[in-house]
Amino acid sequence: MASAQIRSTWEGVQTSVERELDRLLPRADVYPPSIHQAMRHSIFAGGKRLRPILCIESGRLVEGPEASLVRIAAALEMIHTYSLIHDDLPALDNDDLRRGQPTCHVAFGEATAILAGDALLTLGFHVLTELPEVPSERQVRILQEISKAIGTPDGMIAGQVADLEASRQATTTASLEFIHRAKTGALLRASVRAGALAGHASADDLDRLTRYGESVGLAFQIADDLLDVLGSSAELGKKTGKDSRQGKATYPALYGIEESRRRARQLVEEACGLLEPYGERAERLREIARFLIERTS
Amino acid sequence: MASAQIRSTWEGVQTSVERELDRLLPRADVYPPSIHQAMRHSIFAGGKRLRPILCIESGRLVEGPEASLVRIAAALEMIHTYSLIHDDLPALDNDDLRRGQPTCHVAFGEATAILAGDALLTLGFHVLTELPEVPSERQVRILQEISKAIGTPDGMIAGQVADLEASRQATTTASLEFIHRAKTGALLRASVRAGALAGHASADDLDRLTRYGESVGLAFQIADDLLDVLGSSAELGKKTGKDSRQGKATYPALYGIEESRRRARQLVEEACGLLEPYGERAERLREIARFLIERTS
Repeated sequence: MASAQIRSTWEGVQTSVERELDRLLPRADVYPPSIHQAMRHSIFAGGKRLRPILCIESGRLVEGPEASLVRIAAALEMIHTYSLIHDDLPALDNDDLRRGQPTCHVAFGEATAILAGDALLTLGFHVLTELPEVPSERQVRILQEISKAIGTPDGMIAGQVADLEASRQATTTASLEFIHRAKTGALLRASVRAGALAGHASADDLDRLTRYGESVGLAFQIADDLLDVLGSSAELGKKTGKDSRQGKATYPALYGIEESRRRARQLVEEACGLLEPYGERAERLREIARFLIERTS
Repeated sequence: MASAQIRSTWEGVQTSVERELDRLLPRADVYPPSIHQAMRHSIFAGGKRLRPILCIESGRLVEGPEASLVRIAAALEMIHTYSLIHDDLPALDNDDLRRGQPTCHVAFGEATAILAGDALLTLGFHVLTELPEVPSERQVRILQEISKAIGTPDGMIAGQVADLEASRQATTTASLEFIHRAKTGALLRASVRAGALAGHASADDLDRLTRYGESVGLAFQIADDLLDVLGSSAELGKKTGKDSRQGKATYPALYGIEESRRRARQLVEEACGLLEPYGERAERLREIARFLIERTS
């Protein structure tokens, strides 16, 4: 179990980010209401808020302005949620259930779900143009980092395309690595970096936090693959064993369960080691890293 | 016919924007290739490049840096193309043909088309973070304007949702006005404003250009509705009469053909009148406005 301290920190982040999301998203009765209901349905369907906590804790380490960190965190969650809505569509993964709730297209129809995803991505970018106490040069840099991390050819969309194509052919270790790094790794890395850039990160801070973000991102993806094999549907709120049924590229399928566990633990140790110079001040970032793999061992 | 001068200016803009798009989009053979082929298919399927020319000519009027104007123009075209790809999807307008070519999902499948749209929107934002000679404050402002114009509740996505819903119920003049203003008007207005913001627009310049953009945007939409009724399929490269068959909200359906023509001409006159203080220097912007309605009278 994660320590009581990180649980309480995490809950605090969830509360403030969810309050910010509620404030930033158009209300459910604003015209035209269907899209705003759909956006809210998916944003408030639960979720760990992992990208927000990585951004906020990374930014806190280098004294980033709290109001901007929460706003960037909200934008990251909008962007993450857009990607889930589109991934779940019938033409892509065709998932009916997400976090124990009907997916957006099941609840609101395909047209509204496509547009709700588009609208969350767009609002995410818009929100990033209004960051209190962050100089304009840094705002542009944050927008640059995030837009690169979620696009193509190195970011989230490229990873999603590679993942879809991998289902139709034999997966190699090279393509698995590309999928992990691009599909989930890039945005997790950018979440850590965006927080650091909103604060006063030196070149060394940024380098350490970036490598922390990369290790944590890959550990998270391995853990996610492991949970798909090991976890129960009830616990995850979505179907399990689905990746392997769809022939999707996964870490345990390629390396086995024990080797995957070992690799995830090693990545978490590396991530924690990178934060040594910060001593106790980085303990929350270390606990986040450990939390990500604790259900898999 | 538009004058030889504006035709030649317009062709010059098309050439430089298309060269910039070619430079900015990942090459068709970059991994994973399907998405890059799909993005290029839709971007290079023709199109007037109306948003680019509005942005560039507006920026030129206030001495904006040419390289940045062309880059913003390319971003606007990426964003416009993303909206066409998603609008054409089976769950939305279900169009097979666009500019005389198979639509993106017909050519590449639905999953790739959804992701190609997402990728163009994302790349459009990314490109806007790299504007040579535009101060960071202005870059943030341009990103803010454009992201607001294409989102919800006032922008393009809200207009598209309202348009879809209007097909299922009686259209009122109020909802038609909202659809026109939000679905196409907001991005056309933002195109003009983005060019002005990249240059040295005074508050009065920005105000005049904004109102020019609003009038031109509405005139364009009325002309587009008229062409759907009057035009031939061969000329437009898409099916005509489709709006009325789908029960979509159009200007001629609500006000009649003659009143629509009169209103479009009046809007163009208003747009041209706003540019009076600039004399001859604004002649190209006036010619763009006149060109938009010339095929409808």
